Amino acid sequence: MADTYDFGLVGLGVMGRNFILNVADNGFTAYGNDLDQEKVNALIEEGGDPSKVNATTEVSDFVNALSTPRKIMLLVPAGKVVDIVIESLLPHLDKGDIIIDGGNSFFTDTDRREGYLQEKGINFFGAGVSGGAKGARKGPSIMPGGSREAYQYVKPIFEAVSAKYKGEPCVAYLGPKSAGNYVKMVHNGIEYGLMQLTSEIYDLLKKAGGLTNEELHQTYAAWNSGRLQSFLVEITSEIFAQKDDLGDGHLVDKILDKAKQKGTGKWTSQNAMDLGIPVPTIDIAVSMREISALKAERIKADELYGRPKPESVVKDTLVSLSEKALYFSFIMTYAQGMHQLADASKEYGYELQLGEIAKIWRAGCIIRAALLADITEAFQADGNLQNLLLSPSFVSKVQETVSAARELVSYGATNGIPLPGLSNALTYFDAYTSGRLPLNLIQAQRDYFGSHTYERLDQEGIFHTEWED
Amino acid sequence: MADTYDFGLVGLGVMGRNFILNVADNGFTAYGNDLDQEKVNALIEEGGDPSKVNATTEVSDFVNALSTPRKIMLLVPAGKVVDIVIESLLPHLDKGDIIIDGGNSFFTDTDRREGYLQEKGINFFGAGVSGGAKGARKGPSIMPGGSREAYQYVKPIFEAVSAKYKGEPCVAYLGPKSAGNYVKMVHNGIEYGLMQLTSEIYDLLKKAGGLTNEELHQTYAAWNSGRLQSFLVEITSEIFAQKDDLGDGHLVDKILDKAKQKGTGKWTSQNAMDLGIPVPTIDIAVSMREISALKAERIKADELYGRPKPESVVKDTLVSLSEKALYFSFIMTYAQGMHQLADASKEYGYELQLGEIAKIWRAGCIIRAALLADITEAFQADGNLQNLLLSPSFVSKVQETVSAARELVSYGATNGIPLPGLSNALTYFDAYTSGRLPLNLIQAQRDYFGSHTYERLDQEGIFHTEWED
Repeated sequence: MADTYDFGLVGLGVMGRNFILNVADNGFTAYGNDLDQEKVNALIEEGGDPSKVNATTEVSDFVNALSTPRKIMLLVPAGKVVDIVIESLLPHLDKGDIIIDGGNSFFTDTDRREGYLQEKGINFFGAGVSGGAKGARKGPSIMPGGSREAYQYVKPIFEAVSAKYKGEPCVAYLGPKSAGNYVKMVHNGIEYGLMQLTSEIYDLLKKAGGLTNEELHQTYAAWNSGRLQSFLVEITSEIFAQKDDLGDGHLVDKILDKAKQKGTGKWTSQNAMDLGIPVPTIDIAVSMREISALKAERIKADELYGRPKPESVVKDTLVSLSEKALYFSFIMTYAQGMHQLADASKEYGYELQLGEIAKIWRAGCIIRAALLADITEAFQADGNLQNLLLSPSFVSKVQETVSAARELVSYGATNGIPLPGLSNALTYFDAYTSGRLPLNLIQAQRDYFGSHTYERLDQEGIFHTEWED
Repeated sequence: MADTYDFGLVGLGVMGRNFILNVADNGFTAYGNDLDQEKVNALIEEGGDPSKVNATTEVSDFVNALSTPRKIMLLVPAGKVVDIVIESLLPHLDKGDIIIDGGNSFFTDTDRREGYLQEKGINFFGAGVSGGAKGARKGPSIMPGGSREAYQYVKPIFEAVSAKYKGEPCVAYLGPKSAGNYVKMVHNGIEYGLMQLTSEIYDLLKKAGGLTNEELHQTYAAWNSGRLQSFLVEITSEIFAQKDDLGDGHLVDKILDKAKQKGTGKWTSQNAMDLGIPVPTIDIAVSMREISALKAERIKADELYGRPKPESVVKDTLVSLSEKALYFSFIMTYAQGMHQLADASKEYGYELQLGEIAKIWRAGCIIRAALLADITEAFQADGNLQNLLLSPSFVSKVQETVSAARELVSYGATNGIPLPGLSNALTYFDAYTSGRLPLNLIQAQRDYFGSHTYERLDQEGIFHTEWED
């Protein structure tokens, strides 16, 4: 057994196995660890040459087989398991070793762990990894945060294994503390938004345009060769082509409409509220997964209430409007997520470079999209950009597509086809671009019933009125 | 000095002073405590007869002046102050004494305090109080949770001071632990939703219908004598009548459109996400307060983007549609809040009776409304009602008004007038009443990129597909 493996990885599930094979493909030697002997054996077999890829169930053997400073990545479920694995590693580690949590840990857990390990001289990284199983194998987007100095040891490996966008690696040091986990959390929040939008537009095309699965496949495929080019639009197109192995017809029609969640979208929304940053497209994507889970109630409610029969729309018109509305609402979703990152950076001291983040999302990750090249440019052009909508380069993209969003939201409302993501994208746009909103009334109400005071438009100060009733 | 004051109150701010005077009005003797000598003096002066209402800055004098078991209510700011006041009281208390936190404490803080005080033999109540300063003085709605046995000592006082709805007191024992604070939190979440709705309809009436403040005053006043009768519609009507003391015209037009928040609406949304219960009208109300705070960005964005000129609408038509849409969206907001309460009751063991809760909201509190009488009946008729929309008595109310909501959401989207609360109320309705939603696609996407598996419509089990790309 060689004593010079470059990289260690704990957790040989789908993601872990694929990631370690990717490391080995890129010329590094890698050693895996898992409690499950079968997973260990499977990796050794798939790895081929044990001097390049090896694995063990024994923690001490695992740690001792790594060159120092050790670089040990965890790809285990977020939560308690991460703490348990850290404790099992600790007795065997030396000062200066590096542990990298590649899971979707909640960012405050990462801060806690980093503080705990710092006292013991161990460097701890939270490094979100996006791209699914295939990304882990062929090149994911990696979002590391932690000590800038320690990152230098990890950098060559991460840059080699990461996805490349026009030759540039989709990984970068993002900032101190839990910056990496935080960015990955918001990445997933954006992912929730984009998935909701692709799903509701599918509903619209089917109900209002009568598109068949074959037509949906072609439509999403065509969109994927235009400005909507993105991983999610691409796989959506492929999903509509998938035949059902267990019966006739297309698989998509057989799948139960209850969408699960693992928490990162919810955390994004909840934390955005703590920051005071509006992310309504992400919020409603979370709500829609919740509503979807209430299938039994929905069936009861469906029987109680009628619904307008959707007025049919000419297919080509509908497809063209949908492409524009989807582009518009994708922009709004990215704008909300980037806005949250900008604010979180100030609040938590992450020192985030939004241009760098958009850059490493251009390939490898689930939300990769042609649009991210434009977003990268916008934030690189203005490092202090408060919101993507304030970038001059986005004004025409939005102006050109907003009327399609208006038309479809109007159609959906009239015809009883819920378009929650799109309508929240539109109200977000209309509210964010309103110099004057009617929330003066809310301040008046608050002052009326709770003496909460208000400010005025025409003079400085804090005012309270004894309202006449 | 009498040694038999029936009731003690710590925190003689606006709410505290009014509450204690209300207690005295109802024939109980009451003793106040505040660190601020001026507030103590003010209460003594306003109270008139010190054998009925008295106050002190000294904690020991305060506690010793109360009859046992002591009933001490805190009306102090939520957070650390509550803990500090509790610690200052503790050395002077006897077993069996009762502390009642009347503020908007976060429910997990209440659970922690209850556990801590239980060990010391002290009963602790979280009791939300709603009604503002005037409610505290003339009769608020009170939402107590804690020990059922200890509540018997507080009950006569709370029933006397609370608001009455057709003679019935707007207070009831709600359940163990933090049930009272939790119910008050959701009350406030509903309040956020209703306030957002009244404000966006105001915007619509003004921009699309050109209604003057005088017409707005009359419109909301007329609504308040119909099925929309409610505290918030009533005060909204009065707000439009208020002249500006500092200049010409109406005060409402001078108030800055940045709405503040104190956290209870946000907590409602965040906790609903933890429970997995959709409350999108409340979520968007929170978002809108956040967007409103971004005034400087909004002004910049307003200059960058054009907006359609609203197509004018015949006033009477618009007013009639607005009344229906507001009624529809009020129903959706209450439905969401009650749904959250039903689920929280199971999750936290609150044993809530939703009919009792709706009942004590019929008067005194900020969200009091004629509609709550119907909601009370619906939950009393069916104690297991999962959602207000499933109550047979609400079907016709909704069916009669939903088309107005459709028409206005469509108008707002087309004409660039944001109606976020209404559009989320409508998509909530359309999604909740859809037996089939397009989230089968989201499950397909999740299985495609993350092997997260899915269920099928036509057979039991958990499935995973090797998707073809």
